[in-house]
Amino acid sequence: MMSRPIILGIVGDSAAGKTTLTRGIAQALGPENVTIICTDDYHRYDRQQRAEIGITALHPDCNHLDIMQQHLSLLRTGQPILKPVYSHKTGTFEAPKYIKPSKFVIIEGLLGYSTRAARDSYDVKVYLAPPEELRARWKVKRDTQKRGYTPEQVLAELEKREPDSAQFIRPQRQWSDIVISFYPPTDEDDETNGHLNVRLVLRPTIPHPDFTVITNSSYGNSDSAIRLGLDRDMCKPVDVLEVDGHATLEQVNKLEHIICSDMPHLRNICDRESNPELGKIAGTTGETLQSYPLALTQLIITYHMLKATQIYQ
Amino acid sequence: MMSRPIILGIVGDSAAGKTTLTRGIAQALGPENVTIICTDDYHRYDRQQRAEIGITALHPDCNHLDIMQQHLSLLRTGQPILKPVYSHKTGTFEAPKYIKPSKFVIIEGLLGYSTRAARDSYDVKVYLAPPEELRARWKVKRDTQKRGYTPEQVLAELEKREPDSAQFIRPQRQWSDIVISFYPPTDEDDETNGHLNVRLVLRPTIPHPDFTVITNSSYGNSDSAIRLGLDRDMCKPVDVLEVDGHATLEQVNKLEHIICSDMPHLRNICDRESNPELGKIAGTTGETLQSYPLALTQLIITYHMLKATQIYQ
Repeated sequence: MMSRPIILGIVGDSAAGKTTLTRGIAQALGPENVTIICTDDYHRYDRQQRAEIGITALHPDCNHLDIMQQHLSLLRTGQPILKPVYSHKTGTFEAPKYIKPSKFVIIEGLLGYSTRAARDSYDVKVYLAPPEELRARWKVKRDTQKRGYTPEQVLAELEKREPDSAQFIRPQRQWSDIVISFYPPTDEDDETNGHLNVRLVLRPTIPHPDFTVITNSSYGNSDSAIRLGLDRDMCKPVDVLEVDGHATLEQVNKLEHIICSDMPHLRNICDRESNPELGKIAGTTGETLQSYPLALTQLIITYHMLKATQIYQ
Repeated sequence: MMSRPIILGIVGDSAAGKTTLTRGIAQALGPENVTIICTDDYHRYDRQQRAEIGITALHPDCNHLDIMQQHLSLLRTGQPILKPVYSHKTGTFEAPKYIKPSKFVIIEGLLGYSTRAARDSYDVKVYLAPPEELRARWKVKRDTQKRGYTPEQVLAELEKREPDSAQFIRPQRQWSDIVISFYPPTDEDDETNGHLNVRLVLRPTIPHPDFTVITNSSYGNSDSAIRLGLDRDMCKPVDVLEVDGHATLEQVNKLEHIICSDMPHLRNICDRESNPELGKIAGTTGETLQSYPLALTQLIITYHMLKATQIYQ
């Protein structure tokens, strides 16, 4: 069989945590094996043009979706692309970049699942859906620190973008194999990122590890920090795996064991000593925190990426 | 049969007259039907980087030839591309441009025939080969007037580029269907562009109009202003059609009649009243001149472009 890159999609609204998750997965797979592409580079208009036209970057018409899709198809067959480069710092386009796909390709962006042909190009499709209040907080933090906006500007922008978010971004949730929602625990004062819980919607569109053992064990009951249950998501039946931020290392290790059992290579990745980065995030004051929910999320996605190499290569 | 764009290549060294010829053909085919692409846009390095590395724009390593070839293949099947944009004015890259191919596509540049897959993408391949003294004069004129160089800089650049011209540009002549050489008459003082002669090497690789009637008529003898003869070009047998700048309208009309005889649509293009632009060039002092050799050259290429639509569409 022909060897081709394995392609992961990470789609979600602005500041939903795409870049953080992308970096974590790339770290787990080995950065030298991963090509990261942000679909913001496929904007049709620069910042000034968008303001003049009165269009948001979330609107399909504001993006060269056909070219994004063409580049996805080329990457999927192992061909290089000359990728446009949009600078969030200046809001303008820079010299394009020559990209030869590595073993793994991560495509992260706003509209990655908006056309059928684009959707068909991914091996694994992730959608990030934090609660809107949390996303607003993340966006204010990032855009004031890294993109030179004031908090008021960011909140106004969020409001302006809401109709497009509802019409074009959020419906893409239906096409994902995994929906990821980090959320703050309701009954605690402590809401640092390190203690966020995660809710993973696992659609039966890709072969997930068999988590049903959780439902039969004591640590899978509703009081446990790790829970599995049936639910519906956008009207379709799904498994929902929840991991709380206060889960213990012992509980987490059990879940990791399930994920790694049919994937020996993954055991090295789980190993906290050789991969201290797994689940690491920057806390609110820049300190490094270890998040078990994030580590498990990264591990499940990594599992699917490695699984895809077995299936297709 | 599927409709696809007809692709013309116009390859030649710097200042060989590519842009002038391209504009003339586009005018004849109707600008609204023609997409023009300059392969200089596929430079890998900007002007400053080239100077730092010490590489000329003529070197294959200085260009994304694989991407150029990929874009050619996409255009040939009617697909859009996001084309990089290199500015000769600033020597840097600008925002890429979305291009949907028209009915006809003209690809002009330095290295258009340098790979097999690229060569296979053209319907008609033209190579421009003026005498080197004439090309040097053209280059000095253009680069001092439009690109902000001094004459001394242009001549130094020509000398620096000569090894790459010899190794990478001129060998591409062998892949062309038509080699075009405008040249000044030797026995006249008057050397304005308007009175340049043309020598057309017609390889038997595409179906040329039957010009053999010229050899049997009085106006085809060696004294005539229009001559056809057998020759070898890069060791291979070819027809050579020569048209002098002082050819009369009557002589030119006879040749046009041959070209148009099996292509009724072409008669409208030959018609000087409806197409006053045919063969028009800017003289040395900016005045507009009518060149019969240029008009006939444009007409023969246009003939092949229209012929290709009959064959393939």
